[in-house]
Amino acid sequence: MTDLNRRHFLAAGAAATAGAMLSGPAQAAAPKDPMPAKWDETYDVVVIGSGFAGLAAAIEAKAAGSTVAVLEKMPTYGGNSIINGGILSVPGNAPQKALGVKDSPQLLAEDIIREGQGLNYPEKVKLMAREAYPTWEWTVKTLGVEYMDKVGQEGGHSVPRFLYTKNGSGSAVVQKEVDYLAKQGVKVRTRCYVETIIRDADGRVKGLKVRDGYRFPKADSGKVKYIKASKAVVLCYGGFGADVKFRTKYDPKLTAKFDTTNQPGATSELWRETARIGCTQIQQDWIQCGPWNSPEEKGMGIALYFAQGAAATRGLWVDCATGKRFVNELANRKVRADAVINLNNEGHKCIALADTSATDAWKVARPGMLEKELTAGVVHKADTLEDVAKMNNIPLAALKKSVDDYNKALAAKSGDEMGRTFFPKAQPMAKGPWYFSYLSPKVHHCMGGLQTDIQGRVIGIVDDQPIPGLYAAGESTGGVHGAVRLGSCATLDCLVNGRIAGKAAAAEKAWG
Amino acid sequence: MTDLNRRHFLAAGAAATAGAMLSGPAQAAAPKDPMPAKWDETYDVVVIGSGFAGLAAAIEAKAAGSTVAVLEKMPTYGGNSIINGGILSVPGNAPQKALGVKDSPQLLAEDIIREGQGLNYPEKVKLMAREAYPTWEWTVKTLGVEYMDKVGQEGGHSVPRFLYTKNGSGSAVVQKEVDYLAKQGVKVRTRCYVETIIRDADGRVKGLKVRDGYRFPKADSGKVKYIKASKAVVLCYGGFGADVKFRTKYDPKLTAKFDTTNQPGATSELWRETARIGCTQIQQDWIQCGPWNSPEEKGMGIALYFAQGAAATRGLWVDCATGKRFVNELANRKVRADAVINLNNEGHKCIALADTSATDAWKVARPGMLEKELTAGVVHKADTLEDVAKMNNIPLAALKKSVDDYNKALAAKSGDEMGRTFFPKAQPMAKGPWYFSYLSPKVHHCMGGLQTDIQGRVIGIVDDQPIPGLYAAGESTGGVHGAVRLGSCATLDCLVNGRIAGKAAAAEKAWG
Repeated sequence: MTDLNRRHFLAAGAAATAGAMLSGPAQAAAPKDPMPAKWDETYDVVVIGSGFAGLAAAIEAKAAGSTVAVLEKMPTYGGNSIINGGILSVPGNAPQKALGVKDSPQLLAEDIIREGQGLNYPEKVKLMAREAYPTWEWTVKTLGVEYMDKVGQEGGHSVPRFLYTKNGSGSAVVQKEVDYLAKQGVKVRTRCYVETIIRDADGRVKGLKVRDGYRFPKADSGKVKYIKASKAVVLCYGGFGADVKFRTKYDPKLTAKFDTTNQPGATSELWRETARIGCTQIQQDWIQCGPWNSPEEKGMGIALYFAQGAAATRGLWVDCATGKRFVNELANRKVRADAVINLNNEGHKCIALADTSATDAWKVARPGMLEKELTAGVVHKADTLEDVAKMNNIPLAALKKSVDDYNKALAAKSGDEMGRTFFPKAQPMAKGPWYFSYLSPKVHHCMGGLQTDIQGRVIGIVDDQPIPGLYAAGESTGGVHGAVRLGSCATLDCLVNGRIAGKAAAAEKAWG
Repeated sequence: MTDLNRRHFLAAGAAATAGAMLSGPAQAAAPKDPMPAKWDETYDVVVIGSGFAGLAAAIEAKAAGSTVAVLEKMPTYGGNSIINGGILSVPGNAPQKALGVKDSPQLLAEDIIREGQGLNYPEKVKLMAREAYPTWEWTVKTLGVEYMDKVGQEGGHSVPRFLYTKNGSGSAVVQKEVDYLAKQGVKVRTRCYVETIIRDADGRVKGLKVRDGYRFPKADSGKVKYIKASKAVVLCYGGFGADVKFRTKYDPKLTAKFDTTNQPGATSELWRETARIGCTQIQQDWIQCGPWNSPEEKGMGIALYFAQGAAATRGLWVDCATGKRFVNELANRKVRADAVINLNNEGHKCIALADTSATDAWKVARPGMLEKELTAGVVHKADTLEDVAKMNNIPLAALKKSVDDYNKALAAKSGDEMGRTFFPKAQPMAKGPWYFSYLSPKVHHCMGGLQTDIQGRVIGIVDDQPIPGLYAAGESTGGVHGAVRLGSCATLDCLVNGRIAGKAAAAEKAWG
């Protein structure tokens, strides 16, 4: 008997004992994971992931009276959220009003769906836009997050509308969420890796097989434990941007030659596991590169703050080979990243360029950042525009013309040649010294993921029904941002839908 | 005890008997489908689907000495292939040479990857392009398919390069494949629906649970039988274009308001089933609409032959509200369909327009088609350009200018204003009568699907390894066409990769 045959024989025998010849769609749908003989721990709601979404879910589940665990595979909490830029889309915020900017949830929803190429689930987008202002208020009043009294603009938005944390990082939100949870007696459990989501023959998710004390990325590290989720498991495990093998399944272009802004734990294990248990995953091939990153630093870095806040908003992005602009600097991230990647592939360097009038305006918004970037050597200083040209082998006349054309259009309030809208109170580019950073896109955000309904319930692939006991929110889900996520909408998505999922999970009836 | 609890209890008990506490990735990977007590039938290779790909796989598996079954759920064979336009990309064909067109497999591969936005698996594209000419030869020499001695051009191709069957339909290829198989003693088994792909605990696909005598779409019709596949199952079940619920999971825009060119059986059952057993599916959100369809007929219809062969190639596409062209008529299908959809959504009618010099050139290529289209009332005749304007409320001066501009550019061999390349020997538009059809895109092709390796083995989602005993080809697979399938490349994909999968399946070692 060959080994293959023996294995077949044994398996067939076991299946026969368990009641072979089961048939019909109901049995076929569920993976019938083996249930543990005994659960080591029990909670009402078990949240996987400790970024914006997972923590928000945990806060709401706890507030609703449930017992809650938050599991994080990495040695530290916060995922990508804790290294994110701390920007949040809030239509109708006070700094917008001070600048005379008119905005509304409806306009935000329109921007998201237009740039998302209509791959968005419209009801999810409208809900998120409606909840933006109250969610920002919740972070201020309930969590105590502090924001700058300024508004910024990211690509694809038709108006400046993002607020940002005082420390200029998502860590300000994450830390307040963690502190809030700690006061409620819930501590994030780091180094706790989820190996199996246990879905029973009745189709319900019952709990998890975890490895406690896990050492990323060692698959067999940690002690196996079984954790029962009496009400629900909430999946907030984030994206897979750091997983080259997995991301190239969906987008073969995004090979290892692309760096990523993500933390190393942004890998695919639970994407694979949720597919195994029959969750629907959608639009995984939409993987966003951050267009503003610098090749002079690893990962997310800090040059992007200058490239976006000073140069894209009040300066120019320039192709060094031609001295010309090559994209609307406030187009969505896909448009901009593709434009830079195409030029990079032709051997052209691209820079984000700003004069001192731009950096002065931006410095008020991000105090100390320019100095930090200069010290790190990722933003460079030049006394004159001539020096900028010299340092980067840019044809000087063409570069001057690009700056002149922008200044003329700004003065005339005529259309910008690239279709960019002028930032309120933007000044002509004329005042030295000048600053620039290099552009080289990095894998940043997974737009696709689990299909969820408006309550955050995960939808099964076999029958389009919610999988009992399973919720999801944040980057692990798809259908919110569609083809292109707009900057400052990830935090929004995570907070809004994390809270919704946490509340709904806590409202589930316990299975046993 | 509640019903839910009882079901849980029973299932847990059964699992315990079967050896609960199984653990580790190997066990987790396989869905452990119940094996039948007895197989009703046994074949070496079982092919699911009877379009171009399935039939090609069956031919090759049979030629390699395997016993073969071809299962088709519908009452007739051929799937979408039998209603397709019968066009095949063949770089280096004789009619190209007669027109002085230079082409190569490399140029075809470049076109496919460029228009596919680099979501293609490059090695698959190169293989397909290399195999194009020999595959065309195989259809002529082995199957006896007859082609017109003309070359046509579809959108996104940089040169005219498709050959097409004498009857102007894919049925010419399907029928020859079916006839060839019949001579080898293999008859397509219609009304045979695959309900379960049985994947065993060792990870191998062992066979199928089918419903013989199935009446689409009645889930419980037909007699349950178990068919063993000793060597492999080859999945050629096509796309899901006719399944509104499933397609809107991935692209929420494509609601029921969009008609489809697909046959009614282009539904999702096996997309769901292959996801259930752990196959990787990629890029399902790329669903192509045919840009050339007419709202005046149901389904695929026949107006498209005029809209593409006469108007897109040697005429114009015009926005009736403005009298202007609105897209490069030879852009890829996505670009064109999006352009028409956007105008349709604004309430604008769009027409495909050709004069008699264009239809004369095209009539030689598709004899009898224009008369058929006129009789069906899907192509309309007007004595003069003035009449075209009158019949469609088009601003006459603007329409005349559009025609004049095209004629001038053609005469001057200057660039076409929309970036279109002029078809070889195209004549100025001047000769009445004029002809037009209306444009209204319909859901046409699913670019995404199963991830397969270069041999057609289906890749698992848990571990990126081929699933033993499982192959796939054609529209059920993804990663070949990337974001946008080019016209005349579906038949190519199906024939090339169907043959490869059939050969490889036959070369498998039988499992028992």
